[in-house]
Amino acid sequence: MSSFEQIRTLIPAEARAAIRTGAYGRHTAGLAAGYLQANLVVLPETHALDFARFCQRNPKPCPVVGMTDAGSPKFRTLGQDVDLCRDVPSYNVYEHGVLTATVPDISDLWQDDFVGFALGCSFTFENALIAAGIPVRHIDMDTTVPMYRTSIALTPAGPFSGTMVVSMRPIAEARVSEAIAISSRFPLAHGAPVHTGNPGDIGIADLRTPDWGEPVDIEPGEIPCFWACGVTPQAVLLAASLPMVITHTPGHMLITDVPETADIPVIQSD
Amino acid sequence: MSSFEQIRTLIPAEARAAIRTGAYGRHTAGLAAGYLQANLVVLPETHALDFARFCQRNPKPCPVVGMTDAGSPKFRTLGQDVDLCRDVPSYNVYEHGVLTATVPDISDLWQDDFVGFALGCSFTFENALIAAGIPVRHIDMDTTVPMYRTSIALTPAGPFSGTMVVSMRPIAEARVSEAIAISSRFPLAHGAPVHTGNPGDIGIADLRTPDWGEPVDIEPGEIPCFWACGVTPQAVLLAASLPMVITHTPGHMLITDVPETADIPVIQSD
Repeated sequence: MSSFEQIRTLIPAEARAAIRTGAYGRHTAGLAAGYLQANLVVLPETHALDFARFCQRNPKPCPVVGMTDAGSPKFRTLGQDVDLCRDVPSYNVYEHGVLTATVPDISDLWQDDFVGFALGCSFTFENALIAAGIPVRHIDMDTTVPMYRTSIALTPAGPFSGTMVVSMRPIAEARVSEAIAISSRFPLAHGAPVHTGNPGDIGIADLRTPDWGEPVDIEPGEIPCFWACGVTPQAVLLAASLPMVITHTPGHMLITDVPETADIPVIQSD
Repeated sequence: MSSFEQIRTLIPAEARAAIRTGAYGRHTAGLAAGYLQANLVVLPETHALDFARFCQRNPKPCPVVGMTDAGSPKFRTLGQDVDLCRDVPSYNVYEHGVLTATVPDISDLWQDDFVGFALGCSFTFENALIAAGIPVRHIDMDTTVPMYRTSIALTPAGPFSGTMVVSMRPIAEARVSEAIAISSRFPLAHGAPVHTGNPGDIGIADLRTPDWGEPVDIEPGEIPCFWACGVTPQAVLLAASLPMVITHTPGHMLITDVPETADIPVIQSD
């Protein structure tokens, strides 16, 4: 049995421990099934209020599920001993808008003025789609979901602005409305699609050439459905060119103790 | 026709204009039907990030639906020309935790470092309950909803901590689950109840003596249902004893251009 197969069956605290010790370092899709996974953004406190505003104004791409105290790497509301410096399998470090490192631990980079944000991710609604018998193409193809820049304007806040990034999943026409209804139940995981149908309506020229991830097949009778994507804040943060921002490496998420079906993403812990 | 009856039929921008000019200064229940109304909190930027954290960690009592830029009294995402200094019928001014003034306009008190927060309010789910044929007792009695301090601990952030304040509405036992389902559709307006049934379970000794508002009759076969209440942040802010905090006067809300049924509480305006 591979380490991936072993880790799939672990509870969140065990999965985080495997990641923290370096025993596991791959993407987290399918891990700790049933629990919320999150995008990570770390930035200096001086920009944290503007980023909180930006997320409030753009909740579909940026659904905030956790904020640390300034200078603390612990997400106290997302579970027991959730350490954002060590519990994500891979981190991207950006300096002045340029990716300067991809590392498995950011303890050495942590600063006393850093604030961590956790943002809900698409794994949650994908799990719900699959549970309802609606196939998710990129998962079946074992590829990374195709993501596209769009013409959908974001509502700016401070230095943060730009256009929305979306992920695309082709859904059989007969099941599109069910897919919309299911994903709308998870507003903290991007919620309902922002668009279905013609990609040109939202400024996407060619589905075969995604800006991130890999293209997927669209079968006859399928409609491309577009969800707000957690890569949006990464693109916005890059454009803002802050001295230092740290995010998770796409696909390598923070695993929390919050059940995917929780009413609110808050656990009272120490 | 009274001015109240006239203003009920106005659209939000017209209602705000009547409030701004001083033509209307009473509570806003029933005004601009179908549009989101909001609790108001204004505090200095130095405490705004902690307050944003507090709201994120306590989303049932504190559902953020808008944040201004620092120094700007305009809620740009809540509608056209929404001015928090003039568009609320009545404001409470607190200095060092003491109510020092109740005024109809705060333009003279506005400071360059102030940040405004708008938090969803119970009017939204009450309207939905009534639309479904579920009576709301305090509305039928034409009194202020009874509100109670509880033993439900809030998740602290910076100087903000305490216990939750709830509002209580008695619901016929046969319709409790429908009332829960309906209100759960409005997570930005306190969502589903935090408790139903025995008040003692959440530290309420006597329903006949609410901490705010007025007691209501509970008929045989009715269950007291308790929703997280927007007075919670006011109680928490008072306890934090900041030099200056301004809120709406309870019941006198900010009327927005956001439809109550909107997916997200964000309007792209100038």
